[in-house]
Amino acid sequence: MPPNPPAYLLLALLLLLAGTAASAARLRPPPANATSDGEPVYLWPLPKSVTSGSRTLTVDPDLALDPRGPGGASPAVAEAFERYRGHVFAPWAHAARAAGGGGGYGVARLTVVVASANETLALGVDESYTIYVGAAGGFNSIVGGAIIEANTIYGAIRGLETFSQLCVFNYDTKNVEVLHAPWHIQDEPRFAFRGLLLDTSRHYLPVDVIKQVIDSMSFAKLNVLHWHIIDEQSFPLEVPSYPNLWKGSYSKWERYTVEDAHDIVNYAKKRGINVMAEIDVPGHAESWGNGYPTLWPSPNCTEPLDVSSNFTFEVIYGILSDMRKIFPFGLFHLGGDEVYTGCWNVTPHVRQWLNERNMTTKDAYKYFVLKAQELAIKLNWIPVNWEETFNSFKENLNPLTVVHNWLGPGVCPKVVAKGFRCIMSNQGVWYLDHLDVPWEDVYSGEPLAGISNKNQQKLVLGGEVCMWGETADTSDVLQTIWPRAAAAAERLWSQLEAISAQDLETTVLSRLHYFRCLLNHRGIAAAPVTNYYARRPPTGPGSCFVQ
Amino acid sequence: MPPNPPAYLLLALLLLLAGTAASAARLRPPPANATSDGEPVYLWPLPKSVTSGSRTLTVDPDLALDPRGPGGASPAVAEAFERYRGHVFAPWAHAARAAGGGGGYGVARLTVVVASANETLALGVDESYTIYVGAAGGFNSIVGGAIIEANTIYGAIRGLETFSQLCVFNYDTKNVEVLHAPWHIQDEPRFAFRGLLLDTSRHYLPVDVIKQVIDSMSFAKLNVLHWHIIDEQSFPLEVPSYPNLWKGSYSKWERYTVEDAHDIVNYAKKRGINVMAEIDVPGHAESWGNGYPTLWPSPNCTEPLDVSSNFTFEVIYGILSDMRKIFPFGLFHLGGDEVYTGCWNVTPHVRQWLNERNMTTKDAYKYFVLKAQELAIKLNWIPVNWEETFNSFKENLNPLTVVHNWLGPGVCPKVVAKGFRCIMSNQGVWYLDHLDVPWEDVYSGEPLAGISNKNQQKLVLGGEVCMWGETADTSDVLQTIWPRAAAAAERLWSQLEAISAQDLETTVLSRLHYFRCLLNHRGIAAAPVTNYYARRPPTGPGSCFVQ
Repeated sequence: MPPNPPAYLLLALLLLLAGTAASAARLRPPPANATSDGEPVYLWPLPKSVTSGSRTLTVDPDLALDPRGPGGASPAVAEAFERYRGHVFAPWAHAARAAGGGGGYGVARLTVVVASANETLALGVDESYTIYVGAAGGFNSIVGGAIIEANTIYGAIRGLETFSQLCVFNYDTKNVEVLHAPWHIQDEPRFAFRGLLLDTSRHYLPVDVIKQVIDSMSFAKLNVLHWHIIDEQSFPLEVPSYPNLWKGSYSKWERYTVEDAHDIVNYAKKRGINVMAEIDVPGHAESWGNGYPTLWPSPNCTEPLDVSSNFTFEVIYGILSDMRKIFPFGLFHLGGDEVYTGCWNVTPHVRQWLNERNMTTKDAYKYFVLKAQELAIKLNWIPVNWEETFNSFKENLNPLTVVHNWLGPGVCPKVVAKGFRCIMSNQGVWYLDHLDVPWEDVYSGEPLAGISNKNQQKLVLGGEVCMWGETADTSDVLQTIWPRAAAAAERLWSQLEAISAQDLETTVLSRLHYFRCLLNHRGIAAAPVTNYYARRPPTGPGSCFVQ
Repeated sequence: MPPNPPAYLLLALLLLLAGTAASAARLRPPPANATSDGEPVYLWPLPKSVTSGSRTLTVDPDLALDPRGPGGASPAVAEAFERYRGHVFAPWAHAARAAGGGGGYGVARLTVVVASANETLALGVDESYTIYVGAAGGFNSIVGGAIIEANTIYGAIRGLETFSQLCVFNYDTKNVEVLHAPWHIQDEPRFAFRGLLLDTSRHYLPVDVIKQVIDSMSFAKLNVLHWHIIDEQSFPLEVPSYPNLWKGSYSKWERYTVEDAHDIVNYAKKRGINVMAEIDVPGHAESWGNGYPTLWPSPNCTEPLDVSSNFTFEVIYGILSDMRKIFPFGLFHLGGDEVYTGCWNVTPHVRQWLNERNMTTKDAYKYFVLKAQELAIKLNWIPVNWEETFNSFKENLNPLTVVHNWLGPGVCPKVVAKGFRCIMSNQGVWYLDHLDVPWEDVYSGEPLAGISNKNQQKLVLGGEVCMWGETADTSDVLQTIWPRAAAAAERLWSQLEAISAQDLETTVLSRLHYFRCLLNHRGIAAAPVTNYYARRPPTGPGSCFVQ
């Protein structure tokens, strides 16, 4: 193994070489009869530092988990190991091994060392890991086999994903192999917040579909599910304090119980994914009034929520209190976008309330947002708000506020210059419902663009792709998310230098094709990569690896 | 409970009444705050005979399986029961029951009586079942609870699907309930062959995706997966006798091993689904020559296969022999469609071979098909061929031949008049790649149309919807299949009288909406029902139950 690497450069070089070879054959899949020599290994997202060798190791279908360290014995590690065994090996692999006599595998156990037993999944949790895959009895016979080392179980889970991507089924030998061993990978994310927004108000998504999305997120190392649960169109969540609220659901069957929400949070946690819930107030909240009509200023003014009524804030506090028991994540999204206050002005009792306080509707918007922030902070939440709140009254926002960009580029620089934290979701590149944004544009989104000050850079938590649900339901949500969300996932995880060193149409595209096919292989309905419009069907027959 | 019913009439009436109530509100989902009174129960496909009552029974989350009879203890029954428990109950139901103290449920066990221990899954296997769901201690205290009776495990599996559709989660009480109990259902399919064609040559579909399709088929009681494995574009299947054949795969990763194929067959069998494999000769076979170029008449004539070469038939026999070990189903599809023999005529050695035998290319086409039939029959297979073979040389086809219609309507009447068996897939209604065929047209397809003679009717085995893969890959295959395949599934399963008695836009549409949402709930990406073009995204926000 070479000495420790200026590894991203080495990696970039490796990929560039692989890419050069691949580019000539870009319109054709990897040849079916290729040998393993010189075959590139496709990892997504790119790890921070990689060195590899030239040996091919077989992996035992009965691969054993060898848990070590204070956190290694966590059930979450064992469960993740079993999940990845299921991804790497066919269901018949064990029986075939037994029939073949077994034995003689290069990698027979996977040691997973986890330094900490603390399983708290907070923003900024340590997701770093190292992987070594060598041969037992090799240069370092004490180590041998494969080892993942991490400070937390979440780092170990990320490492398992990477390990699974090193494992490739060889259809000629019918073995799972690790090519180019020994591998030494050191990895950690560039950003702590790597999110995907899911909108269950425009279309209800069944719990099992949300779980499919969570599974797929973990494959790309995304780590925050921003659950935009409620909006104008429907209110699917049970709120015990105000049990009529979910009468705003589309139907009596398009709902989430408190138990469903817990189930989703726990399912995500096992995959190292936090769930950030949102109530989008006061603008996107019409559906609330189906259960409690007095939340509407009037029957002709059903949005924004009635700013003049104490009941409005009682309900908000009730929702937040109930949600606090479900969502342990430290961030809570309070929305605050697209607040059209015109009808407050023409609703007599609201007009009167404004007059009495000498407030404009703009003042009232600020009043509403700040009051909601107070309630969230009281419940020990860090408030997240869409950027209009910053654009409208940055001087009044609580300093804790995380500003969520969406309207366009250049917002996070302004946000962090004022000392606020920022999440980037510039709609021009990271709104997945914009079907005309090709993957290359998604890949180009850079949260730190325009921010050179190191301290200000630290205020950028990361970014998020947004899957707004107007035309995305169970039938098409996964094919709209993937493969484009993967482009953002790599941007958010991988080192900027490694990303910048690549050529989009050669090295990145071939890896993205491969990752799309990997998603398909795992049952995720990721769409063709090269269609200009997202989620379009393939234009004709062909290989997954080139479409 | 009423005396035994002229039940389909009673059912049609029930559904008509429900439909009348529903039609006024057709553009709105079932109201979220509706009580259970008068709520219709949505079953798809319609059972043969149904009677129901007016009681609501709760179902125990710890519902126990009580297996009876010689076949009741089959692991396949226990596995199916566990699958359906997973569909009916949320993962948290057991814990919630324990926390709530448990007890007091109307249905605490499900007795499954299976008369035969024979698990052979052949064409025409007995899929009939009866269901009784009452309350323990009710009018018939000996029975109590719920009971499924069937002659075979496959009938029991169909009954479990129906039982699962009777079980509805009540979001107010958080119990699973059976409304309108007691239920007495007697059911059996109208046709023995209820198929779906899946094409893995135009796009490779990963094994887990094929399993998703199989799962979804079982929900609609389809029972034959017609696996169109190989075609011009790619040859993904391993054939041990001719190991170079799968060099015709798109890539070295878009392949099925023999073990994969066994896995698929076994997975399907557990769901009562036979796998009918196809090699489409001599026309759709260009990909074969990638591994064995002499199968091509010449480099300029790569299709149809070389009729003049013994090697061609050696390879066919090798494939069939290898496949015979994988596919136990009695029917094997030999294709035979779209054979354009022009280039045989201009290939010197084939031209010479024809001249020596005084054969036209049409004669050679017949010669090829009949010879392939002989090989299949020798391996104890019933040959299935696309209708061109019948249209071209019906007088020579082996009498065992099952003719597979596709070109248009009116073919099966001609086929059965000649004493052959027939499968209907009229492309105008049952080709799912025809995206402009709405569900109503799919529903209108009638395999017995134009056949009044009872003995001739018996020669119609059933029908099949065809999911050709030119523009269907992992990303969109399920949304192209569903919900339209469900329309054919009901046509093939349910009694003609019951189907005919319904009004499409009221009773059928509301049930189909419900079934589509049930598929979504089970994680299947079924598309909106009412889009004129199939697999289009929803046009805007809204409920699954109306889109």
